[in-house]
Amino acid sequence: MITLSSDFGSPYPAAMKGVLCSHTDARLVDVAHDFPRQDVRTTAFWLREVLPYFPPATHLVVVDPGVGTDRAALAIRAGEHVLVGPDNGVLAPVARRLASDAAGTDDGTTDEIEPFEIVVDEPESATFHGRDVFAPAAARAHEADADRLGECDEFVPADGYEGLRFAEPADEPDGATGEVLVVDGFGNAITNVLGEMLDGQFGEQIMVDGERVPVARSYAHVAAGERLVTVGSHGNVELAANRGRGDDAFGVGVGDPIELAFE
Amino acid sequence: MITLSSDFGSPYPAAMKGVLCSHTDARLVDVAHDFPRQDVRTTAFWLREVLPYFPPATHLVVVDPGVGTDRAALAIRAGEHVLVGPDNGVLAPVARRLASDAAGTDDGTTDEIEPFEIVVDEPESATFHGRDVFAPAAARAHEADADRLGECDEFVPADGYEGLRFAEPADEPDGATGEVLVVDGFGNAITNVLGEMLDGQFGEQIMVDGERVPVARSYAHVAAGERLVTVGSHGNVELAANRGRGDDAFGVGVGDPIELAFE
Amino acid sequence: MITLSSDFGSPYPAAMKGVLCSHTDARLVDVAHDFPRQDVRTTAFWLREVLPYFPPATHLVVVDPGVGTDRAALAIRAGEHVLVGPDNGVLAPVARRLASDAAGTDDGTTDEIEPFEIVVDEPESATFHGRDVFAPAAARAHEADADRLGECDEFVPADGYEGLRFAEPADEPDGATGEVLVVDGFGNAITNVLGEMLDGQFGEQIMVDGERVPVARSYAHVAAGERLVTVGSHGNVELAANRGRGDDAFGVGVGDPIELAFE
Repeated sequence: MITLSSDFGSPYPAAMKGVLCSHTDARLVDVAHDFPRQDVRTTAFWLREVLPYFPPATHLVVVDPGVGTDRAALAIRAGEHVLVGPDNGVLAPVARRLASDAAGTDDGTTDEIEPFEIVVDEPESATFHGRDVFAPAAARAHEADADRLGECDEFVPADGYEGLRFAEPADEPDGATGEVLVVDGFGNAITNVLGEMLDGQFGEQIMVDGERVPVARSYAHVAAGERLVTVGSHGNVELAANRGRGDDAFGVGVGDPIELAFE
Repeated sequence: MITLSSDFGSPYPAAMKGVLCSHTDARLVDVAHDFPRQDVRTTAFWLREVLPYFPPATHLVVVDPGVGTDRAALAIRAGEHVLVGPDNGVLAPVARRLASDAAGTDDGTTDEIEPFEIVVDEPESATFHGRDVFAPAAARAHEADADRLGECDEFVPADGYEGLRFAEPADEPDGATGEVLVVDGFGNAITNVLGEMLDGQFGEQIMVDGERVPVARSYAHVAAGERLVTVGSHGNVELAANRGRGDDAFGVGVGDPIELAFE
Repeated sequence: MITLSSDFGSPYPAAMKGVLCSHTDARLVDVAHDFPRQDVRTTAFWLREVLPYFPPATHLVVVDPGVGTDRAALAIRAGEHVLVGPDNGVLAPVARRLASDAAGTDDGTTDEIEPFEIVVDEPESATFHGRDVFAPAAARAHEADADRLGECDEFVPADGYEGLRFAEPADEPDGATGEVLVVDGFGNAITNVLGEMLDGQFGEQIMVDGERVPVARSYAHVAAGERLVTVGSHGNVELAANRGRGDDAFGVGVGDPIELAFE
């Protein structure tokens, strides 16, 4: 199986699919092609949250503001998965997550992460490496199997790769401070604060930036239009509004600091 | 085959696909993931119009404003199809349509409809049952076959399920009154009036809310920009504009009453 | 394999997929369903650029402002590919390209192009031939194989088909004049001038409509926000802005004339 993720919109992903289908009969599954344009950080967040739900697969990822420059092209084995994409950090958080899952340990293991540089001949274009470099490499990785990348001429072991880490929240005496990592399509503002903070607090109230808001297990536990603090499907604290947009209701956006406190 | 329908936008559907692929090799086909957010009624309309074109399949449907509350999770056998989703009415119209098609009778048969409640253990999240409840259930239903759901521990016969009916049009001496059920992406205003009303009238004129409009077999039978009344692909009377938006040209939206009369 | 292209948005493409799956087990691959509504010319451009990357396949294309009129329905064999869609020009440029690729010659060969008219019985609707005419025909063409369309009752040899040609650029003493053919989702303005004009000029400057702009191999070779002239992935000269929109930065849109000159 090969999954596809990009910020290409349409119809460029189809050219990648054509190339993939020319090289392999692998099943193709679209993750998303509407990641925010050239937004490596937001894409990295979503990949970390979504790709671990897949069975072992090759994941083709192209959010690549540096296309055509000398940034490396990578194939990273992470557990039984292979991540193929540009060396700009977009693969790093999901690689760590998949490797930890495989190792059964906390974030930090490296045994299950093996980065390779993709050997790139002169590609057909300097502006569409998704089609000309990464799609052929993903097809090759799929055919090779995750634990045999090293046997392929196209992949040479890499010394390292570009990292990317999200801001860490800070514990406070009565709660935590953190920030909004991303806002999803429903308008839910997903913070970097772990949901465990809300354990046993459903039905109670919490102060968000100084205002009292109900803590609820899910959206419809408050009235339509009302704000709530909940644990999102990614396990983080989320600022939401039932049948509304949490980002608007709380007046927050990506990168904004958030102060959460129980009275 | 498993089809997927939701109001999730992107990238949440990919997490459901990952879960499905982890449980089954079934072919996956996206119906749509941009149904209007939390709009059970509009989604129910489209599912009724689209799903009957598929061969027997399991249809995963997640438009679920009550996620995390005590609304039931359903698997409904309808003919040889299985519908999996929340018990909020979204599955009801398509279930009736599929059951009628299977029985070869008019709407109303219930022999071909068998509702089951999905037995839900504590799901991983309270906010994303598409991933944590419905996708595993759809995979299970697919593996079980439509006529053997009752043999699975995960599905227990349900007494009933939430219904949903669209407003009925009314016959008038010279025509009919009805309402706009949905507006499609082209701007066509799809009414609840059956297209048979226009039989033999193509090339003639009809009064729409008191204004004279041509009745035409298709859009390009009138000049660019001109309004027309036609029979849409769903078999209902549709208010349209050639190379324009019918909703704007007629000044109508979802739920608006429509009066159609031949002079 | 059957690819799908349309301007349908959502959820109409799903009805076509249902019909296809009812007739064939062929692999389905979406090219795009958000081609600009009823824009035959833009769709024709993208099909020409994208479909040749696919292995031999049946390509279902429905951008069809004349649906329900007497325009013909076509199946065109082009090399080992088959193009199925309305006879309005949308298939012409990609048919020529696929045929040239198959023949190994320049544009102009016709040996590898064989047009058939699809025999249409009374379709279920006059407004959705994608579902009622083209999808069944594409399934049939897929089952028949490209070189045996003539043996099917559904396909009769056609005398010709509607052509469509893009404006040709003109060589000038110091460069070329052309026009913007399409603007892609990133805002890159793709011209009809061949990229060979820029051979050996990367790092130099060029006059675009009288203003000096750097010629660069790819976007990130200039500073963020800065304009550049490059060769896009389609092989044409493209007006772009690094991490911005080229159409806005150059103040150009589809159809605008462009003057490119080296000093």
